[in-house]
Amino acid sequence: MPYAIHIGPNVRTSPFFDATVADGVRGFSVYNHMYIPGHFGDPDGEYDRLLHGVAMWDVAVQRQVELDGPDAMALAQLLTPRHLGGARPGQGRYVPLCDHDGWLINDPVLLPLSETRVWLSIADSDVELWALAIARERGLDVAVSEPDVSPLAIQGPRAMEVAAALLGEWVRDLRPFAFRETDLDGIPLVVARSGWSKQGGVELYLRDCTRGTDLWDRVKRAGAPFGIGPGAPNDIERLESGLISYGADMRRQCLPANPFEMGFGPMIDLSAGHDFIGRAALERIAAEGPTRRRIGVFLDGPPLAGNQRPLALLRDGVEVGHVTEIAHSRRLGRNIGVGLAPVELADDTPGLSVRLPDGDRAASLTALPFLR
Amino acid sequence: MPYAIHIGPNVRTSPFFDATVADGVRGFSVYNHMYIPGHFGDPDGEYDRLLHGVAMWDVAVQRQVELDGPDAMALAQLLTPRHLGGARPGQGRYVPLCDHDGWLINDPVLLPLSETRVWLSIADSDVELWALAIARERGLDVAVSEPDVSPLAIQGPRAMEVAAALLGEWVRDLRPFAFRETDLDGIPLVVARSGWSKQGGVELYLRDCTRGTDLWDRVKRAGAPFGIGPGAPNDIERLESGLISYGADMRRQCLPANPFEMGFGPMIDLSAGHDFIGRAALERIAAEGPTRRRIGVFLDGPPLAGNQRPLALLRDGVEVGHVTEIAHSRRLGRNIGVGLAPVELADDTPGLSVRLPDGDRAASLTALPFLR
Repeated sequence: MPYAIHIGPNVRTSPFFDATVADGVRGFSVYNHMYIPGHFGDPDGEYDRLLHGVAMWDVAVQRQVELDGPDAMALAQLLTPRHLGGARPGQGRYVPLCDHDGWLINDPVLLPLSETRVWLSIADSDVELWALAIARERGLDVAVSEPDVSPLAIQGPRAMEVAAALLGEWVRDLRPFAFRETDLDGIPLVVARSGWSKQGGVELYLRDCTRGTDLWDRVKRAGAPFGIGPGAPNDIERLESGLISYGADMRRQCLPANPFEMGFGPMIDLSAGHDFIGRAALERIAAEGPTRRRIGVFLDGPPLAGNQRPLALLRDGVEVGHVTEIAHSRRLGRNIGVGLAPVELADDTPGLSVRLPDGDRAASLTALPFLR
Repeated sequence: MPYAIHIGPNVRTSPFFDATVADGVRGFSVYNHMYIPGHFGDPDGEYDRLLHGVAMWDVAVQRQVELDGPDAMALAQLLTPRHLGGARPGQGRYVPLCDHDGWLINDPVLLPLSETRVWLSIADSDVELWALAIARERGLDVAVSEPDVSPLAIQGPRAMEVAAALLGEWVRDLRPFAFRETDLDGIPLVVARSGWSKQGGVELYLRDCTRGTDLWDRVKRAGAPFGIGPGAPNDIERLESGLISYGADMRRQCLPANPFEMGFGPMIDLSAGHDFIGRAALERIAAEGPTRRRIGVFLDGPPLAGNQRPLALLRDGVEVGHVTEIAHSRRLGRNIGVGLAPVELADDTPGLSVRLPDGDRAASLTALPFLR
């Protein structure tokens, strides 16, 4: 797409903006009211680096919502259907958030820094406003704010080698979603074993926005022996891996979905008896059984470019669901997509197609992820 | 800036997207999780059309938050410090929204469609999540949602001629911010005397997203005799006119400001005794007096391009405030900007400057707007 984006003050720039410009960033998108690099001019090479080497990403748009005060954990528990019993500092969790009617409004990672301070590392919606309203309306003793925190991701099969070279061998001992507060020659960081890919790695949560270029350049130098290069969260890899993208796959405003439909069911133990927003709605949905399920879809025919907007999933020509994002997977040699379909559609249901701008493509369903 | 933006499903497309592409849109930004045209390849011509003729803008990003139910007006009053006594269907109002501590979180236009249904036509933050949380936590009898509504603006000194040719002479009788429900050969609309410029005109709130191209083309045909052309909300004109841009001029997350600082004071009658969120905080701020005020600023020297991020306002080299957006005004033949400064700085305070990436520029303050 040859459209331009102007960098202006109505959207925030990341602390890594200058460094990504210096490294040749060629495109941006916007997420959480902040510019995020789209690519650096070599989409195929950037994909290959993520799959076979190591990539570094400016993901400062993954903003934190900080809950700080005696009621921080109580508020966090109210915000998510996932039972937080046993939550302890240093171990993150993936926590879907729902509104009172059980619709998903975000799917952040919860990072408990201490018993009284937690971060929600959020997808693209203003969780800060939501959490603030809940906290104040319930009279909870907790401050809600966006702290000065900006993640930089190191992802790929060689990511842990880079992280160890940069930070020390201890990082190899971090379990998935575990994190530790540290500093790198005075640059304050939280280092987490996480990232929005299935290729492994860490996220460095920079806690001083004035040190963005400094941190970027240190990662670049530490990663040079391993062939590190700049990139961005990769839509093809995320589809292959079945990762959810709030905003693309669901959004309260236009593509509402509940957590059971999106596959969060195994995380939600309603028998634990905890109170959370949306509980009554989720109990009802659980009792009735969900009517839709998250699907993978194969689309026949020659390689497809990505879609600009959700596509209709058809059965015998009648719309029955939607496909939210598609791409051509080189690893699979096929066109793939994700979406939501009625539960009664099976993987071998015949007569399915996806409506593209230039016509319908025959399709079949499959379980996610496409690749492990 | 030569950066590209990819059109993908993680950001929503406007119902007018296809029409703007057909009319040669060259750039986009993102606002309320939706693409908005940036320009159509002729920024100077687009500015001139707004100032001397008539322009049409895809402003679907100005999403509506609908409050629907017996408590709709009660909720609206809770959300804004502005007293809504006397609010009546068909008359819009500009209503700042504050959090419990008095920080601005949005500055929408309120459109009461009836006694039990109102829209908030919002700036760039998720007011839907905020309003929903307040409504449900207080047990109000009101549904909060984003309806299928997408504004198209007609702006400029000839805008009312176009609107009258399109809709009939009655539109000339609409007072500022007044609106009426109507349809255009079956296209359902709300027509409002409003728009994010000071050049006058209307906004057509399209109520059926499948009719975007149809409406766009009808406006284009009706406007052809008046020289209408496509454009977008214009940062230079808005600076000249002193219009506020939530996200650029203030934002809770990074540039917090209260309504008195931003010039909303005359709208807020605390003696009316109405209950609203943030009342205690605003009473305290009003009693103490605000410490900052919204300013216009002239920057000396040769014409400046716009800024990428907020700039420091300095007095004798020490940072005392900030300038949120700058531009070169051809009408004034000067560099102008807006920002926030300590109340003790007067228009003739000497020793002021603004820190630009390539050095400091001498500056002086002035009242807003620059032009009427």
